Amino acid sequence: MATNVDADALTAEVLQSFSATPNERTKEILGSLTTHLHAFVRDIAPSIEEWEQAIDFLTRTGKTCTDVRQEFILLSDVLGVSMLVETINGQETPDATDSTVLGPFHMVESPVRALGDDASPESEGPRCVVSGRVVSIDGTPIPNAEIDIWQADTKGFYDVQQPGIQSIGNGRALLRSDSEGRFHFRSVVPMYYPIPTDGPVGELLDATDRHPYRPAHIHFLVTAPGYRELTTHIFIGGSEYIESDAVFAVKESLVKDFTENTDPGEAARYGVQTPFRHGRFDIVLHPGS
Amino acid sequence: MATNVDADALTAEVLQSFSATPNERTKEILGSLTTHLHAFVRDIAPSIEEWEQAIDFLTRTGKTCTDVRQEFILLSDVLGVSMLVETINGQETPDATDSTVLGPFHMVESPVRALGDDASPESEGPRCVVSGRVVSIDGTPIPNAEIDIWQADTKGFYDVQQPGIQSIGNGRALLRSDSEGRFHFRSVVPMYYPIPTDGPVGELLDATDRHPYRPAHIHFLVTAPGYRELTTHIFIGGSEYIESDAVFAVKESLVKDFTENTDPGEAARYGVQTPFRHGRFDIVLHPGS
Repeated sequence: MATNVDADALTAEVLQSFSATPNERTKEILGSLTTHLHAFVRDIAPSIEEWEQAIDFLTRTGKTCTDVRQEFILLSDVLGVSMLVETINGQETPDATDSTVLGPFHMVESPVRALGDDASPESEGPRCVVSGRVVSIDGTPIPNAEIDIWQADTKGFYDVQQPGIQSIGNGRALLRSDSEGRFHFRSVVPMYYPIPTDGPVGELLDATDRHPYRPAHIHFLVTAPGYRELTTHIFIGGSEYIESDAVFAVKESLVKDFTENTDPGEAARYGVQTPFRHGRFDIVLHPGS
Repeated sequence: MATNVDADALTAEVLQSFSATPNERTKEILGSLTTHLHAFVRDIAPSIEEWEQAIDFLTRTGKTCTDVRQEFILLSDVLGVSMLVETINGQETPDATDSTVLGPFHMVESPVRALGDDASPESEGPRCVVSGRVVSIDGTPIPNAEIDIWQADTKGFYDVQQPGIQSIGNGRALLRSDSEGRFHFRSVVPMYYPIPTDGPVGELLDATDRHPYRPAHIHFLVTAPGYRELTTHIFIGGSEYIESDAVFAVKESLVKDFTENTDPGEAARYGVQTPFRHGRFDIVLHPGS
């Protein structure tokens, strides 16, 4: 008989209910979830009203999700869970470029662009250049690597945050490294921006007196056959909030100064005017799959 | 600089981010949540794909919720969290009737009915009677207590699970105890039933080889001025699944035999035919608010 007269017996009963789970990994995850979740509930001893508030918060978080907005990723981000998962996974590849969070804006497919193309053709403001190489941990160049980039504009907004759909794809590019692993693209230097605050995650930040800002950055998702996928950003050196990213994603190795480049030859090569700001980012992938 | 090179430093940084939270209880809850949630993530070391699956599961759970369906309460139920919260809260009132989970079907307002009315007028099958008294922990009768009841029908379905809306309110009643604290109503003996399995919680049960059934029961939510609200069920003695409730809500004290009553005087008093099944349930409320 499931009498459940005390909390410990109840936890044991829930753990027992998962004992016939066919998949061992699923059983491990649900056992750990039950143990930690029950420990949390025992720790805070919520009133019924607090439990109802939690149910309501989670429900509204799910209902805030759309094709172009992922409020649960945002919640995972502001609780440091996304970064923790990235950090744990990154520990397996210490010689590769540091990874960081995917973030909630990788929602639409990036348009295929050629090397040197402008990734932000609809954004106003001076062009910058981002260039680098994709190499293996031993320095071997990786040709034809797929480099998916997405970024906010000079006002701090992604394409999917603009009214209408004409801007979808602006601030995004799907590039291929050349035969020597090199890549480059033109764009605008993104601005720092607030994560969306008009949903449940915004309420959480508000209730905890936390600011919603992320320092300026450009997202990279890099894949190549025979190598592990890399999810990362480069952070624009000197950006505001680089010491207090709302989603805890800054790693020192990923902060890149976008220095002023006045070299007329390089400007001509990249198709920009001097002076232009130039960010350099070499990407090291770890063999594997 | 938030370099986050290791997982422990990251957890400390997230905890620190909540340090300016104005409300002490909110700060306590979020600190505990962060600690336990990060411990869970470290424990299972999820792959990125597993994290994405978790985000997807939570998102779909939110999107499954409607005005008449609460999938997050169902998730809380099958993980034993709802029952744990009830158990912790019930520890404060050991002399009152045991509480149990609210469940996901208290979604619509119960129709006001007079004592003796039929709570399930649209349900076929022989009528049963449920009767009892509402008293304080010292035995004092509590007149005019509000007794909100809801139940499944003889096939195991709640009104909100029926096609169309004509049945809304069937299997529900909002009663008032009389001047001596007594109450009674007619109804049908509910059947055991599966919790809804066509959503994410159903996937979870399926993946863990758990059955979705709840033993037959009638929900009670009892309130009276000067007393603590009581959320409970009575379980129909002898019902299938009483040893393995999918939501862990059975307490021995709440199992009531619906015995056969052949007393013609009582049948006349309750407006039913002999023999009828008769469940007796005295409800003890704890003073407080």
